[in-house]
Amino acid sequence: MTTFRELHRTGEPLLLPNAWDYASAAALAEAGFAAIGTTSLGVAAAHGLPDGHGLARSETVALARLLHRLPCPFTVDIEAGFGADPAEVADLATELASLGAAGVNLEDGRPHGTLADPARQVELIEAVKRATPDLFVNARIDTYWLGVDDSTAERADRYTAAGADGIFVPGLADEDRIRELLGTIAVPLNILYLPHRHTVRRLAELGVRRISTGSLLYRTGLHAAVGAALAIRDGEPIPLNPPGYAEIQRLSQ
Amino acid sequence: MTTFRELHRTGEPLLLPNAWDYASAAALAEAGFAAIGTTSLGVAAAHGLPDGHGLARSETVALARLLHRLPCPFTVDIEAGFGADPAEVADLATELASLGAAGVNLEDGRPHGTLADPARQVELIEAVKRATPDLFVNARIDTYWLGVDDSTAERADRYTAAGADGIFVPGLADEDRIRELLGTIAVPLNILYLPHRHTVRRLAELGVRRISTGSLLYRTGLHAAVGAALAIRDGEPIPLNPPGYAEIQRLSQ
Repeated sequence: MTTFRELHRTGEPLLLPNAWDYASAAALAEAGFAAIGTTSLGVAAAHGLPDGHGLARSETVALARLLHRLPCPFTVDIEAGFGADPAEVADLATELASLGAAGVNLEDGRPHGTLADPARQVELIEAVKRATPDLFVNARIDTYWLGVDDSTAERADRYTAAGADGIFVPGLADEDRIRELLGTIAVPLNILYLPHRHTVRRLAELGVRRISTGSLLYRTGLHAAVGAALAIRDGEPIPLNPPGYAEIQRLSQ
Repeated sequence: MTTFRELHRTGEPLLLPNAWDYASAAALAEAGFAAIGTTSLGVAAAHGLPDGHGLARSETVALARLLHRLPCPFTVDIEAGFGADPAEVADLATELASLGAAGVNLEDGRPHGTLADPARQVELIEAVKRATPDLFVNARIDTYWLGVDDSTAERADRYTAAGADGIFVPGLADEDRIRELLGTIAVPLNILYLPHRHTVRRLAELGVRRISTGSLLYRTGLHAAVGAALAIRDGEPIPLNPPGYAEIQRLSQ
């Protein structure tokens, strides 16, 4: 089996769909994806928890515990590490690695639309890499996602120096900025697929090494399910399109 | 708020969509459904467990614990009661009622395609009704679902005499048989919506009082999510249609 790390260097970008439960991960693996990620929004919302507040640690670990059954590598979205203490985050990473995780996603966004001090984020990344050197640490930079500042390139440098194996900049869509960032970072760049703004083909041409779907699949599935229920109610054939529920929106804050 | 029991007697059948996690329940409630059920397949599969084997008790209770947040009544699919001992099943029902559940679904199907001895099933129903008289017990009869025999009418009589508040016969599609059954039972009849075989309107005309969706919405959502991932991979617009994954199929056995 190609290792998760190698999947970032095949010439084609790794298209990483994000699952929210065991069945979605299994179905995506069965559909042929080479690796599976998790979506912290999906995992949190499934359990009635808000995303990004560090509340879904046990639910995230419980899901990871099931994913060793997959026929492919998996990586776990651990929000900001489910704790501010580097030792605690390193312990979580060690536990996930022991459960078979090939990687984690660690974000520098913090609740209420703020960004971590990059020096503090570096401490988290260093602690994780010291504890589990083989775990692929995808360092997520939330500058674009939160629209707060543009310390992206500087953060990418510092996180890479701290040992990050990949850099993830969700919300980044502009091709010039993607190209610019690709010119300065030494590790694979991960972009969040944004419907109607990206294509896998174009991101591949630019040199993006990993494309993830974030909570898109979860929201798509939820919407399709509700749409089917409404179609049954209204005597219509089962439809799809378009997402958006206030409760899910609230939980994603 | 109209009580869950009253929703079976409004003149229109209660269309009960089945959720598998907190977010799906919340989204369905937000879409305007008057009550929400759970799907034991969805809950089990989400946690990597097979449905109908009595293994997802704690996951089912954990979900129920979140559903008191819904703006509408909810009922919980408890498979065959997650235990063979009537006292144990009654304890579960009491716990669910204390968490705010308005009802439970209790099936007489047993693992490996067998049916419970109706006398044993009567003991379970009686124990639940003794422990929590107000909980709406929807007694599911799996004769059609499993295609094993036709003791449906006899079972319906016995379960109703034992205190069942409703009778659920999944897999029943034939209008003559539905009519026949409606003529003999004294409590609301629940039919599982089967795509392309039922319409809400026709079931309403027949006198069916409750229509549930079983695992259909969960499978629809899963399929839509995987379909979206494949569409992204292939550079196509996001689609829907049609379900079917071996892993899910395996877990539904």
